Amino acid sequence: MPTRFRLIVCAALALCASAPLVAQSPTAQVSQYRELAAQIIRAAQADSSAYDRLGRMVDGFGHRLSGSEALEHAIDWVLAEMKRDGLANARTEPVKVPHWIRGRESAELIAPRRTPLVMLGLGGSVGTPRAGITAPVLVVSSFEELERRKEDARGKIVLFDAPFVDYGVSVAYRRAGAVEAARAGAVASLIRSVTPYSIRSPHTGALRYDSTVTRIPAAALSVEDAMMLRRMQNRGDRIVLHLAMQAHTLPDAMSRNVMAEIVGRERPEEVVVLGGHMDSWDVGQGAMDDAGGVVAAWEAVRLIQRLGLRPRRTIRVVGWTNEENGLRGAMAYRDARGADLNRHVLAIESDAGVFAPRGFGFGGAPEALAVVREVGKLLAPIGADSVEDGGGEADIGPLMERGVHGMGLLTTPTRYFWYHHTQGDTIDKLDPADLAKCVAALAVMAYVVADLEEALPRAIPVAR
Amino acid sequence: MPTRFRLIVCAALALCASAPLVAQSPTAQVSQYRELAAQIIRAAQADSSAYDRLGRMVDGFGHRLSGSEALEHAIDWVLAEMKRDGLANARTEPVKVPHWIRGRESAELIAPRRTPLVMLGLGGSVGTPRAGITAPVLVVSSFEELERRKEDARGKIVLFDAPFVDYGVSVAYRRAGAVEAARAGAVASLIRSVTPYSIRSPHTGALRYDSTVTRIPAAALSVEDAMMLRRMQNRGDRIVLHLAMQAHTLPDAMSRNVMAEIVGRERPEEVVVLGGHMDSWDVGQGAMDDAGGVVAAWEAVRLIQRLGLRPRRTIRVVGWTNEENGLRGAMAYRDARGADLNRHVLAIESDAGVFAPRGFGFGGAPEALAVVREVGKLLAPIGADSVEDGGGEADIGPLMERGVHGMGLLTTPTRYFWYHHTQGDTIDKLDPADLAKCVAALAVMAYVVADLEEALPRAIPVAR
Repeated sequence: MPTRFRLIVCAALALCASAPLVAQSPTAQVSQYRELAAQIIRAAQADSSAYDRLGRMVDGFGHRLSGSEALEHAIDWVLAEMKRDGLANARTEPVKVPHWIRGRESAELIAPRRTPLVMLGLGGSVGTPRAGITAPVLVVSSFEELERRKEDARGKIVLFDAPFVDYGVSVAYRRAGAVEAARAGAVASLIRSVTPYSIRSPHTGALRYDSTVTRIPAAALSVEDAMMLRRMQNRGDRIVLHLAMQAHTLPDAMSRNVMAEIVGRERPEEVVVLGGHMDSWDVGQGAMDDAGGVVAAWEAVRLIQRLGLRPRRTIRVVGWTNEENGLRGAMAYRDARGADLNRHVLAIESDAGVFAPRGFGFGGAPEALAVVREVGKLLAPIGADSVEDGGGEADIGPLMERGVHGMGLLTTPTRYFWYHHTQGDTIDKLDPADLAKCVAALAVMAYVVADLEEALPRAIPVAR
Repeated sequence: MPTRFRLIVCAALALCASAPLVAQSPTAQVSQYRELAAQIIRAAQADSSAYDRLGRMVDGFGHRLSGSEALEHAIDWVLAEMKRDGLANARTEPVKVPHWIRGRESAELIAPRRTPLVMLGLGGSVGTPRAGITAPVLVVSSFEELERRKEDARGKIVLFDAPFVDYGVSVAYRRAGAVEAARAGAVASLIRSVTPYSIRSPHTGALRYDSTVTRIPAAALSVEDAMMLRRMQNRGDRIVLHLAMQAHTLPDAMSRNVMAEIVGRERPEEVVVLGGHMDSWDVGQGAMDDAGGVVAAWEAVRLIQRLGLRPRRTIRVVGWTNEENGLRGAMAYRDARGADLNRHVLAIESDAGVFAPRGFGFGGAPEALAVVREVGKLLAPIGADSVEDGGGEADIGPLMERGVHGMGLLTTPTRYFWYHHTQGDTIDKLDPADLAKCVAALAVMAYVVADLEEALPRAIPVAR
């Protein structure tokens, strides 16, 4: 393949022998689906099976960290249920995944007063020595403050007590805190949990190490505990903390992406893929993040099947594995597709919590955006008709990098980040009616894009 | 004493030699305090010492359950600070308090799936045998459902999964669940935590046993866990749970009520008492419940003192001990007053969280209500001018039963019950500006009532 292509709209024509030579307007293409979309929406809203299935999954298996038995059991169950649904080509594809184990962990304030602190180790962290680490604490509010006070950080436990701005901004301390603290000579790194709200509820999540500095243990304190240490430092108290973490990483484990299909009636080799991720952090139920996303996509496909609809192209639902601490499922899915990647018409993921849907964020060619915006209008009856320019999700990222159009399901602003990666990510926070709307939105978008006579205009990807 | 008196308005005249024979109208009595009240409010709002002091108390001592060293150390600190403030008669009075110890505790779901549950034992609960209790679970939604299914309850762990209505209604399951479950032959009693909201955050609180049935161990599950067990039961799953609690009660411990005064310039023997409770449950910081109440009352008195104000009557601030699991401090305070009880003109407690004050709930004679309503109007600048008919708080209950007028500080509807008796009852939930307004409201109310030329009209109490 040549090393580089320019963006060529409608290059997909080459794949679509039956497509007309002159492009239909998006409006004309989509308008014929109005009644069908309404029927899909009604059927989704009349059906309680999505919430029921989500309950069986999260209550039945609990959280599902990569490498855990619970994850593999949940994958087995989804596979068996997909077969029972009568979906085609229900199968798994193997994926090697990181196998991080939290182990026992604790943080205790020693001075100015002995009291246990509420914490969660960060995913991927190394452990402390068996006896733990006892060290003075330096509280900083930002990387900049650490830089200014780095002489004070040596030999200490650094706490990044950064007030929450938004997830995209504040997660930097979770990801990079351990490296920056280690660079300053700290013996461990703590963060204020990345959340706008807390009932002493700590948030885990992945960190990144860097080969240039020592890997030091890293954990999140609850917002309340971080703020208390900040107040103590402001009062001039000498703060000493004992941190004990058995966290460690075992050799990679085997996991699987799980998937099934409705095979396209005219162009089965072209694929609309949609899904969520099967794995979760090792706290709560991983109900929002992301069992709900998997179930919503899966139920969307089951609903299309149940309504006897068979689109021109193949619709594939995928439960990716290992989104949280490796993205190995997403990369394995991409790698297993090989040259067929460019037959992926669209990739959709739901990973923002299955709250009331408001539409989709779309990453791809402007001409394709115009089409999916028309499809989005079919979702006006459930308020999910907004299609924003720009978007995607983690598991479809590797596809999008190769030029596949991607879409993330957008949901209404909610308390998602109150629960994210905590013990509180449980199904009771989700509303069956909202979940049904997510199913409807995904089903309409996936079906119509898979069925359009003229394929979604696409960009030919940069070759790698 | 005769066994009963009728309500006699202005009976306090007998105590007030200098009072005019013809009662002034409440409006006339109070109107002269308008400028002074404004001055008190300004001073409270310009002063950050209340929040600072609250921080030192809760960060410095943590939670303060009756019988704990932390409670006694906090009392020592308050006493020393009250002396440093230059308040008069700073002292403690001894109180024998219950000494309940939580010990280690856990609940694990055994079937249909092994997983730890998030729980807190209820205050006063007995423990399980050393090996714990393993038993099937019966989930009921109400006492009525337990009554209907009591044949099913024998030998089981009963879970009251009662949806939250309001605290007054729903706390019945925390208080009486263990007795009702034992009556049905259950081996342990669980409740859904009494709260409208949860991030897997369990709520403790006192239970009551009954001498007619066996004392069985009792704990609160998080809302999420209780709902999960309900879903499992609805699916027909057999639920088995392992409960292990080391809870036990030691012989009564010694604690103290702590208090100080501004001695009245004309009628020092007459007292307006205000305060909150020093003790808390053994989770979180007991910042809302009720360190904030103690500090608000204490700072109100300190503020009056700092402004050089000396009212006609004595103002006494009290930090009662053992409100949560015994009310022994409140009863000891009453008993230590003896015949002087009827010289208590008014008792005020702040125990609803020091959120933005909206006024007071008043329990007492209608004629007195008319006066305190006028005083309340002085608080209009901070929106705390509502004085409702009916009110009181736990620690002033024993005084009110003896005919002392009582008032509870009312605050704006908040998330108080999201944090109540949880690890999340911490100072960061409180706003320094709101706390300053609580100080202002308490200071104005206490000062004006203590200074009125004509004493608050009172009811002569029922004799005991």
